[in-house]
Amino acid sequence: MDTKLDVLIIGAGSAGLAALREVRKHTKRFAVINHGPYGTTCARVGCMPSKSLIEAANAFHRRQSFAEFGINGGDSLSVDIPKVLRGVRDLRDRFIAGPIKFTEDLGPRSIAGKARLLGPHHVLVNGQELTADKIIVATGSRPIVPATWTEFGDRLLTTDTLFEQERLYERIAVIGMGAIGVEIAQALARLGLEVVGYGQDDFLAGLTNEAVNRTFHELLQKEFPVYPGAPAELRQTADGIEVTNGTHTVVVEQVIAALGRRPNVDDLGLETLGVELDDQGLPKVNPQTMQIGDLPVFLAGDANGRVALLHETADEGHIAGLNAVAGKIICFKRRTPLMVVFSDPNIAVVGKRLSELIPGTFVTGAFDFRRQGRARAALRNKGLVHVHADKQSGLLLGAEMCAPAGEHLAHLLALAIDRSLTVYDLLHMPFYHPVVEEGLRSALRDLTAQLPEKPASDLSSCAAFQAEALD
Amino acid sequence: MDTKLDVLIIGAGSAGLAALREVRKHTKRFAVINHGPYGTTCARVGCMPSKSLIEAANAFHRRQSFAEFGINGGDSLSVDIPKVLRGVRDLRDRFIAGPIKFTEDLGPRSIAGKARLLGPHHVLVNGQELTADKIIVATGSRPIVPATWTEFGDRLLTTDTLFEQERLYERIAVIGMGAIGVEIAQALARLGLEVVGYGQDDFLAGLTNEAVNRTFHELLQKEFPVYPGAPAELRQTADGIEVTNGTHTVVVEQVIAALGRRPNVDDLGLETLGVELDDQGLPKVNPQTMQIGDLPVFLAGDANGRVALLHETADEGHIAGLNAVAGKIICFKRRTPLMVVFSDPNIAVVGKRLSELIPGTFVTGAFDFRRQGRARAALRNKGLVHVHADKQSGLLLGAEMCAPAGEHLAHLLALAIDRSLTVYDLLHMPFYHPVVEEGLRSALRDLTAQLPEKPASDLSSCAAFQAEALD
Repeated sequence: MDTKLDVLIIGAGSAGLAALREVRKHTKRFAVINHGPYGTTCARVGCMPSKSLIEAANAFHRRQSFAEFGINGGDSLSVDIPKVLRGVRDLRDRFIAGPIKFTEDLGPRSIAGKARLLGPHHVLVNGQELTADKIIVATGSRPIVPATWTEFGDRLLTTDTLFEQERLYERIAVIGMGAIGVEIAQALARLGLEVVGYGQDDFLAGLTNEAVNRTFHELLQKEFPVYPGAPAELRQTADGIEVTNGTHTVVVEQVIAALGRRPNVDDLGLETLGVELDDQGLPKVNPQTMQIGDLPVFLAGDANGRVALLHETADEGHIAGLNAVAGKIICFKRRTPLMVVFSDPNIAVVGKRLSELIPGTFVTGAFDFRRQGRARAALRNKGLVHVHADKQSGLLLGAEMCAPAGEHLAHLLALAIDRSLTVYDLLHMPFYHPVVEEGLRSALRDLTAQLPEKPASDLSSCAAFQAEALD
Repeated sequence: MDTKLDVLIIGAGSAGLAALREVRKHTKRFAVINHGPYGTTCARVGCMPSKSLIEAANAFHRRQSFAEFGINGGDSLSVDIPKVLRGVRDLRDRFIAGPIKFTEDLGPRSIAGKARLLGPHHVLVNGQELTADKIIVATGSRPIVPATWTEFGDRLLTTDTLFEQERLYERIAVIGMGAIGVEIAQALARLGLEVVGYGQDDFLAGLTNEAVNRTFHELLQKEFPVYPGAPAELRQTADGIEVTNGTHTVVVEQVIAALGRRPNVDDLGLETLGVELDDQGLPKVNPQTMQIGDLPVFLAGDANGRVALLHETADEGHIAGLNAVAGKIICFKRRTPLMVVFSDPNIAVVGKRLSELIPGTFVTGAFDFRRQGRARAALRNKGLVHVHADKQSGLLLGAEMCAPAGEHLAHLLALAIDRSLTVYDLLHMPFYHPVVEEGLRSALRDLTAQLPEKPASDLSSCAAFQAEALD
């Protein structure tokens, strides 16, 4: 293999492969180095296996509505956890097949090994030094686990190991109530395990809105105990692992650490680049170019510690890839922020967070889904949405929700915010009946009631009278 | 009661009540006449009870995925149809309570009786003549049933009678495979009844796109026999009712007529208005004003034979109400067309139908949901979406689909089409991962591959380089 390359990509995960897609359009002088398992964090241990687990859990949980629907026998359903986990792995294997084949097909351009930067153009891997015009670093992240917790051995799981288990213990504590912790904890509780959730932060699942957070906490609390607002400590006891946050103490058989993820930049040699590194060992990266300073080095995906979301990671790889082969660095607008948590009801945060809005400049429209017709017919009428708009113009700024079909409402709002629409613009679209989107419409109408302009109709009047009669 | 009114509304259904909401803001000299049961077609016998039945049916049907998820005991579930129907009626009663109270609270301004127009300002009801400056006719519609079918007595149901049944027979034919027929037939089949569907048209559920229709037909056919493309004839036999379309013959115990709805304009006196009536007895109505000719009479909702969809009906009542109290007739733009059928997968038609597009001026992007990751994790990966865009500009024109979460994809597309967005605009929004909206994105990318302009990125580049670095 040629050791003088145009582009060297370190990491064959979602960001690295997205970069590769752009790079290979322009040059054959590239290589991809990967350390550890192939198949992307998302497909192997992240988005996809967790969604598979959640779908099984929600299908089983639905039995609680069976009697009200007129379905008998729900009580005699049981769940075979080892089979659920096998199903998750089967699907996982199908999801990782694509990315694995993608790198396999590269032949010698794909290198398995741990890379170490020797400078802005030099990388050492498997004892060999490679040089490259441009380097894309996309080494991903790994779950955070406090060093002392290793003593719990296989009683301590992370998303890296959870889906590999043949079976799970009955009593499980999930430590960390961010997006991943909430998804996993609710899924395991719905699969009939005795789950307790501990969160350091007051806010669950990445929310920043107190009213939505309170509603969500109350709903979760009906399914399993959730203790936010204090760090948990673990201690080995004769019976298992004792978990306490000072106020609430339980003894469990297994602990799942969901404390967030840490960029994989240890021993990567970032210090050889000659730029300042922060206390996490990370350099500054321009999120519109993915470039580190003015170096020919790009840092994309989870590895830069920015946002560990697949769609952002894919964009970052894409941007880094385009810039690695561009004559001149191109600056890209990043997308409207969107976060979804696949709990039930879904959590979603779109556009600006409440903490980013200037008090006094905006108004908030709310809707409680208990009153929503379609959600009632589905026996899913739980949740709350808050939508924020500029108090003068009605420009949509952001929204937070825990809502039935919230993932879909969030995409509708994301499009509206992305296009700089006002509340009036959004109310102009058709809302079919009966759909949960009507609940969002109620929140929008709650907004217009607070705005200075109150048109008599959501419809716009014709510019000129048109005699378009029925045929 | 005063017999000289500003506005008289005939019909206390969805259109009439929407009109009333506007009228009462401007005058107290109004009355609402209603014939037959109160509570709106939608809440009483339409959208809401059907959705309630569908939710129960889908919950029961989901057991077919239980084994694959790792859930045992799905085979021992059973459904109690009388209980399902009671549940539907219970919910129905809660949904109709609102509209009923709305008219009850009107006191003497609410009149129960059959109205007959005597001219553009005069109405006869319960032997009394009322005069009004403006009249809003919103008398709704009723299911079409061929006259000879009355011989089948209570073996012949329509949506007016279906939800009132204590129980249902085992073998049921649904005649008519439009939106309502498809929804009811699939729900009853999923509740374990032996259903056969007959449709006169080749297209099911209001589709106009052959590929989508074929996909949907194949999917439905796996659940129950569906025979589109030929009218069905019924004949009483010793064993029950024989249904045949000439090719396929079955004997069933009960028949549900879902042949569409007919405006309630019989004996209404529309001929006294002095305008031309068509062979259905309907005058021309301007859909942007709801006015009949230049008369002080408005015809809104199902009664005008235009589109029997709740959100359109509500708009029509709203427009008629605003115009009945306006000094000068206001002309309103109607909304982007949107139709959803709550089958599984959902059917949706957004914007222009294929038959309304000029051949050669557009391109079509397609995506088959068998390949969609999230839908696969949910074991719901069935369906097809076609999106049409202008072949030069990429302006979104319309879409048809049978798709998982199709009702939500349809709202996203409806907003995009309503705002005159291009494919590129829509691709600019964030698509979270993993969501079924990614399937829509694949169809959009299939579109851009056929368009003359092929940007290197879905992202837009910054107008000017911004040195927005990581904190």
